[in-house]
Amino acid sequence: MPEQKSAVVLVSGGLDSATALALARHEGYACRALSFDYGQRHRFELESARTVAQTLGVIEHITMAIDLRAFGGSALTADIDVPRDRPAGAPGEVSADIPVTYVPARNTIFLSLALGFAEARGCADIFIGVNAIDFSGYPDCRPAFIEAFQKTANLATKMGVRGQRIRIHTPLIGLTKAQIIQRGMALGVDYGLTTSCYDPAADTGRPCGRCDACRIRAAGFADAGITDPATA
Amino acid sequence: MPEQKSAVVLVSGGLDSATALALARHEGYACRALSFDYGQRHRFELESARTVAQTLGVIEHITMAIDLRAFGGSALTADIDVPRDRPAGAPGEVSADIPVTYVPARNTIFLSLALGFAEARGCADIFIGVNAIDFSGYPDCRPAFIEAFQKTANLATKMGVRGQRIRIHTPLIGLTKAQIIQRGMALGVDYGLTTSCYDPAADTGRPCGRCDACRIRAAGFADAGITDPATA
Repeated sequence: MPEQKSAVVLVSGGLDSATALALARHEGYACRALSFDYGQRHRFELESARTVAQTLGVIEHITMAIDLRAFGGSALTADIDVPRDRPAGAPGEVSADIPVTYVPARNTIFLSLALGFAEARGCADIFIGVNAIDFSGYPDCRPAFIEAFQKTANLATKMGVRGQRIRIHTPLIGLTKAQIIQRGMALGVDYGLTTSCYDPAADTGRPCGRCDACRIRAAGFADAGITDPATA
Repeated sequence: MPEQKSAVVLVSGGLDSATALALARHEGYACRALSFDYGQRHRFELESARTVAQTLGVIEHITMAIDLRAFGGSALTADIDVPRDRPAGAPGEVSADIPVTYVPARNTIFLSLALGFAEARGCADIFIGVNAIDFSGYPDCRPAFIEAFQKTANLATKMGVRGQRIRIHTPLIGLTKAQIIQRGMALGVDYGLTTSCYDPAADTGRPCGRCDACRIRAAGFADAGITDPATA
């Protein structure tokens, strides 16, 4: 029996990364999930990450602690209010007006730790559920960033030097939120297990309904003509 | 009075990063030091990092915990013996025979966290004491890696999108170990405060004298014609 190919998948507990994990599984990868307890306001998502990883079937799941509150500089990691009812930008837009929920260098940090995890396990494939269409305009969700990171990864590692090419897979990067949801539903993803809110109620985890993450999620389900099982 | 320019400097407690910090201070940067408690076997170095940062004068010092033992895959983060009396490679050589002290993606991880720290403080300059001459042949010490990371950093961040160019400074990258030591001595660095050993005695921190780090350090002091104050 040939050895099954394996991948590291970044799993946040949200809708996009659950879909990325389902797609990696569908492509035949044995998956190792990586989540971060980074001091995020919506730490509640880590419960969802555990359930999503278990339900979709992973061979390993690490939740790594890195206290990005030591740096701060974001509404998610410092005492800065999460914006509510912010007007949506145009699809695919990255402007200089990046919202305060941007966490400095977050995806670079997450991908570099995924790279360390992958290389330590002898695995050359990394999946990340970034999306550059229905998103908050974060610079580290764009294709140009991902391409540059992939190039860096191949220069950074023993694996790269040995010619075992590292690939950063972004299966959602060009999809609308509605398309992501439809893709996931077709693969049997239970979105009732996922959570997207940046600022959920501390006791129940109930989403606020008014932050960017809630609004983009709600618009995606509406466009797809599907009721969000997490809020039903 | 014009605002003083500031930089984030990666400080490990070793000889190279102490010199990089001294050079950054000499160039007029107000410095923020960043160290990592990453589960390294030679965790003893963090004491040196604190002393070095204090002595050379920093405005902030964060020691961040990230448990890379969860990934393992290196003699520094797993139960793998540190090689002793390993024959030195040719200066500047990176071969497929990268030693087991290589930590998967370590400098990518460290630089990405430095990037998050820098951006959160509104600072566009990062110093790292990598050296590609008298080193262990790690891929993530090479100029091509640094250039790729710098490009990634500028695509990853709000700062980059806004055109505030992020620079990764590697003032030691082309120097021999002897030149690094001479440069640092001229700036008044007390190398007696630094530690390089990968596998020091657990109780005293006394260097083993036989790992790559000890051997490269000893050769550097010998070439410079200086007695190492840490072992005198």
